[in-house]
Amino acid sequence: MGITVAIDAMGGDHGVAVTVPAALAFLRADPDSRVILVGDAAAIGSALQRLRASNDARVRVEPASEVVGMDESPALAMRNKKDSSMRVSINLVDRGEADACVSAGNTGALMATARFVLKTLPGIDRPAIASFLPTRDAAVCVLDLGANVDCTPEHLLQFGIMGSALAAAVEGKPAPSVALLNIGSEDIKGNEAVKRASALLAASPLRFIGNIEGDDVYRGNADVVVCDGFVGNVFLKTSEGLAQMLGDFLKSEFRRNWLTQLSAMLALPVLRAFKRRFDHRRYNGACLLGLRGIVVKSHGSADVFGFTCAIQRAAEAARQGLVSRITNQLESLAPIPA
Amino acid sequence: MGITVAIDAMGGDHGVAVTVPAALAFLRADPDSRVILVGDAAAIGSALQRLRASNDARVRVEPASEVVGMDESPALAMRNKKDSSMRVSINLVDRGEADACVSAGNTGALMATARFVLKTLPGIDRPAIASFLPTRDAAVCVLDLGANVDCTPEHLLQFGIMGSALAAAVEGKPAPSVALLNIGSEDIKGNEAVKRASALLAASPLRFIGNIEGDDVYRGNADVVVCDGFVGNVFLKTSEGLAQMLGDFLKSEFRRNWLTQLSAMLALPVLRAFKRRFDHRRYNGACLLGLRGIVVKSHGSADVFGFTCAIQRAAEAARQGLVSRITNQLESLAPIPA
Repeated sequence: MGITVAIDAMGGDHGVAVTVPAALAFLRADPDSRVILVGDAAAIGSALQRLRASNDARVRVEPASEVVGMDESPALAMRNKKDSSMRVSINLVDRGEADACVSAGNTGALMATARFVLKTLPGIDRPAIASFLPTRDAAVCVLDLGANVDCTPEHLLQFGIMGSALAAAVEGKPAPSVALLNIGSEDIKGNEAVKRASALLAASPLRFIGNIEGDDVYRGNADVVVCDGFVGNVFLKTSEGLAQMLGDFLKSEFRRNWLTQLSAMLALPVLRAFKRRFDHRRYNGACLLGLRGIVVKSHGSADVFGFTCAIQRAAEAARQGLVSRITNQLESLAPIPA
Repeated sequence: MGITVAIDAMGGDHGVAVTVPAALAFLRADPDSRVILVGDAAAIGSALQRLRASNDARVRVEPASEVVGMDESPALAMRNKKDSSMRVSINLVDRGEADACVSAGNTGALMATARFVLKTLPGIDRPAIASFLPTRDAAVCVLDLGANVDCTPEHLLQFGIMGSALAAAVEGKPAPSVALLNIGSEDIKGNEAVKRASALLAASPLRFIGNIEGDDVYRGNADVVVCDGFVGNVFLKTSEGLAQMLGDFLKSEFRRNWLTQLSAMLALPVLRAFKRRFDHRRYNGACLLGLRGIVVKSHGSADVFGFTCAIQRAAEAARQGLVSRITNQLESLAPIPA
């Protein structure tokens, strides 16, 4: 099924230098789909020309005169920049001209604008940010990654529902297992919100498998891991920092002298398999869940490959009807005990 | 300076098979020190005999008739097992017969018993668990790792004081930099407790360097990282799980066929440097801080090398006067604004 994706062409650290070639790479892999490139029409036009794609009928350019800065206040960006590439991209989803949108811009502004324009789904108090991470055998969906610092048990239940729908849609898992991130300290099993969320999740129609600890997440013991945005952000950033440190150490050790350089050449198949399996670019594209439309956030520093992955994730979520999946799950939910 | 360390010889997954040889390894490296091996005198005696150390004047055996199980309720263990190897080890610290004690037993029971027997220092509401982790260049002290799930800003300030004293004592850093683990979401910088803790830390005599995100911890940007026990436990377990997954993947890829096995042999200097630098056993030995005595918790599954590291950490903390360092820091603290 052909999908139309609106792309904030100006967002992120690299703007059109990344977003335009990524959009074209997406179309090459998904030839029935379409893209709407939103932003400075001249800059987008010349990027298309350089890539000989000016006449591709699947590419539409939608002008937008403003850009939201990476450090701009989300509230101010939302109020003052009504013609930003970010805002116009979201408007296209709202008007049904696009099935999904992708931006590598300011996360806070994207969330605030998406929430304002698209509104949240009935039954969702707070949208959440979800992302996939590689585990031993597959990928795990973790949410919330930073949109909601203080969460009630009801919020955590809603995250479980949204994450389950996302894993089902994007990873093709029919009944994803859902776990609650907790700690295994002997006498205190989690804080009050987590304890009560556990009861709500157990009573829900989700396939809830109980608590999970940080180390078991990477053993792939759950398809979806639910936590508040503070804990989720620490989880994500810690993982990124540790993986980077270990990778950098290996790299510098292999470069130490000619002998280690030779051994690196011989170890190339192993190092390549490692890179392929854990390449963070493949997991780029965090989903803003709980909105009446699909919005995907790319890393600001994503390269063409990474940004293409984010567009593909947005298209897949749209193709698999992510929003109606979440709505259906919410409707099947028993009334929440007060 | 010679130090006397009481060792719970029965704790952990391996008991005397690990604790006794580790105690002797400690004495070989630190010949002026002494150990008190606490537990089943017959089992300890035969372990000493096997290692030809029965007549070592630096080794004392202190009988204890009970053992706290790894899954036992901390409250019940504390109430009912007054002659456990864990309790007797802590009693030796309380009576001044030992300068520190080490146990690989049940964390909850160790904390509950240590708190009951030794009491907390004046100015400390709650003891915390602190551990060192390897970063890009050095080691970082992180606390709390799970003793306190819900923390007030005052607790976080106290963790900063205790962690700073620990890093100064054990790592020899004269004025350790202290950071508060937080998230970098654009519009919401942390929850309320973290925000207020930041103000308290900034007003303290500590070298507070502000907020830190999970990825920057591994860049070695701070000597001490403060967080509540829930977040700290997630940080620790996530790191352990990710490092294990990446290590296991590399191992299995290098074992894939004769060619990759050959390349692993050639890459041995690199792989060894990697293992040496990030060997979690070197970082074994979490400190229970805020008590009127030094108590170190080893991983339950530690081997002889890992358990030896934990004993060495306990001895170093005692040698450097950890408890009086914390007391002095607390006294130098300006009255906390209400």
